[in-house]
Amino acid sequence: MSNGFDDFYAIIPAGGTGTRLWPLSREAKPKFLFDLLGQGRTLIQSTFDRLAAIAGMDHVCISTGERHVAAVEEQLPEVAPEHIFAEPAPRDSTAAIALATAVLARRHGNNIVVGSFAADHVIRGKVAFVDAVRQAVETARAGYITTIGIAASRPSTAFGYIHEGQSLADEIPDAPDACIVERFVEKPNAATAQAYLSTGEYRWNAGMFVMRADVLLDHLHQYKPQLARAIDAIADAIIEDDRALAQAQAEAHERGENARETVDVADFHEHRDAAMNKYWQSLEKIAFDYAVAEPLSVEGGVAMIPGDFGWDDIGDFNSVAALLPSVNERNLKVLGNPDQVVTLDSAGDIVVPDANRTVTLLGVNDMVVVDTPDALLIAPRARSQEVKSMVKMLDESGREDLL
Amino acid sequence: MSNGFDDFYAIIPAGGTGTRLWPLSREAKPKFLFDLLGQGRTLIQSTFDRLAAIAGMDHVCISTGERHVAAVEEQLPEVAPEHIFAEPAPRDSTAAIALATAVLARRHGNNIVVGSFAADHVIRGKVAFVDAVRQAVETARAGYITTIGIAASRPSTAFGYIHEGQSLADEIPDAPDACIVERFVEKPNAATAQAYLSTGEYRWNAGMFVMRADVLLDHLHQYKPQLARAIDAIADAIIEDDRALAQAQAEAHERGENARETVDVADFHEHRDAAMNKYWQSLEKIAFDYAVAEPLSVEGGVAMIPGDFGWDDIGDFNSVAALLPSVNERNLKVLGNPDQVVTLDSAGDIVVPDANRTVTLLGVNDMVVVDTPDALLIAPRARSQEVKSMVKMLDESGREDLL
Repeated sequence: MSNGFDDFYAIIPAGGTGTRLWPLSREAKPKFLFDLLGQGRTLIQSTFDRLAAIAGMDHVCISTGERHVAAVEEQLPEVAPEHIFAEPAPRDSTAAIALATAVLARRHGNNIVVGSFAADHVIRGKVAFVDAVRQAVETARAGYITTIGIAASRPSTAFGYIHEGQSLADEIPDAPDACIVERFVEKPNAATAQAYLSTGEYRWNAGMFVMRADVLLDHLHQYKPQLARAIDAIADAIIEDDRALAQAQAEAHERGENARETVDVADFHEHRDAAMNKYWQSLEKIAFDYAVAEPLSVEGGVAMIPGDFGWDDIGDFNSVAALLPSVNERNLKVLGNPDQVVTLDSAGDIVVPDANRTVTLLGVNDMVVVDTPDALLIAPRARSQEVKSMVKMLDESGREDLL
Repeated sequence: MSNGFDDFYAIIPAGGTGTRLWPLSREAKPKFLFDLLGQGRTLIQSTFDRLAAIAGMDHVCISTGERHVAAVEEQLPEVAPEHIFAEPAPRDSTAAIALATAVLARRHGNNIVVGSFAADHVIRGKVAFVDAVRQAVETARAGYITTIGIAASRPSTAFGYIHEGQSLADEIPDAPDACIVERFVEKPNAATAQAYLSTGEYRWNAGMFVMRADVLLDHLHQYKPQLARAIDAIADAIIEDDRALAQAQAEAHERGENARETVDVADFHEHRDAAMNKYWQSLEKIAFDYAVAEPLSVEGGVAMIPGDFGWDDIGDFNSVAALLPSVNERNLKVLGNPDQVVTLDSAGDIVVPDANRTVTLLGVNDMVVVDTPDALLIAPRARSQEVKSMVKMLDESGREDLL
């Protein structure tokens, strides 16, 4: 192993609409497809860049909805088709992570280490991130399902927390910061969050998990046997497609053809499609935390590496505002072209000019203004979280066209 | 005279951009072209309807900028081309009223009575309006330049006031409510406005003037001789065009043609165009109040009829809101299609959805939201008047495209 990551594969589950970022984020174009930091790369592109730098470009896989595959391929042309897992319908993170892991294990061996990292998180501090992943991979090799805990910088009630237990430094010398996860706790209320913070023993659960493929699949069979068997069947089918494709490519090669040009990967999904049809719809919809990490933590099988990098899940426009630089001395934030925003006696606003129009604000303070071609949203920044209520209301009133 | 108005001609000066109604109202499409009450007729259409009902359709003239003639013709196809006076550039109300009066006097006699009523005012109470105009016409016939004073319903600082003097009921029995105008006063400050109101002797000056053509033109020669001579010259030129047109029509008729089809009125502007070129640009830009009404009032030559009808000049979006019915129980006002506005926990807003998009408001109270295809405005209702500052700022920053 050259850099210590040769057996490491990254999985990027790219799901979730990002309802609180409506009307920018839509069912048809979710949050991870946007450049929410205004830095020239979308969230999934940045996530890919970050993981490709560690695992290598051909060790990064993406699980996403069928309807988003085209957009993902367009944003990440460097990802090979066999590294994109298309889901016919959302079945939460357990199915996404387990299927990618099962396929990768069949392709590259049961002892590979996989790591799952959401497509729509923001991370600052590359060195600290790489070090945390490195220690997580070492800990995973030792058999632990390993999460990376985020330093809780405030008593947030928007995240679940991880209560850290005893150190694993003696057991795993190459992961000096590893410790046992005592338990996972749900999103707390404000007082509880404050209490967690004051102990210094709690970190945010960002849903990052690193583990050996065999360890994950064994635990899945233990906790969710029906789900595990269905995933195995789909993974087997994908491997059958792999073989058929490889054979077709070999035959083309023998005929002196350029197999990349004459053999279309899209023609080799027969077995997968049949297995998906048979199993996918009935798969249990459950987050990986609930299905595996939490029950296993009770048995002492989950470890944590503290991540000392900056992290944000950009849940709402207030988070977007917090991460953007101000474009004037009155703290105006613009996601887009600042020339499309004109303000007079206005401060602290976040404007998303996404409809090629001029947005003018007169005496408007601390507001969110999101201007898209078919829908405009105006709300106080402090109520950014409630944007999901607006989306719910639109849904209930039959405005699916806007969702 | 059948209804007592046979010698009465109405002039509608249609000028002014309505800057405080930006971005709905623009230089290219001013306020008077909009249906600001959401009743199916634009302001100029309603003004025309109101005056045509009194004077007759063919006794209503419109003075407007050359660039707006096409829109006016489209909105008011019932107005004959010779009743639309096109101004090469805005020269305020004195030039507009004087030119229309001078032409009408040449066409219909010096003793006709003309009345000037702005294209962008809103009036409710048809019977009271007709009665006020009737009394004003009677008073005008007696030689007074006669204004209609609006009952001051609040101590507004946005309007000039008229201080009423002694009754003219004895002198003009057919205008029992007529009185002398003691003086015109400028827009007052709040304390002065309150003081005016408490006397009961002050009314708003809505710029409505009714007068005999000869009386107006004589006074204009007295106060603004240079302006009056230029107007006379332009009016003479228009009459020359009238004659040339009439001759061409007569000749066509003799040839057995339908003159309406074979003679194009637009071809008979030669003399007018030459006179406009010679005089218009250098005309003094001055409001009729300053040029004639105020100096004449000092000499006791101006009378007032109190108007007991509802009146508004819809200066800003707060005025628009005040005149629109609520579309929900939280006092939402919508100028346009209410289905294009979705609100959640929001009250007292005025929304103008003019870009075929859905406007969504979450926790937004007492705001103005004007959504047009190239510009969006957001401001508190209480700051509606300051919209003109936004327009000024856009102008100064080179955004003529948005004005």
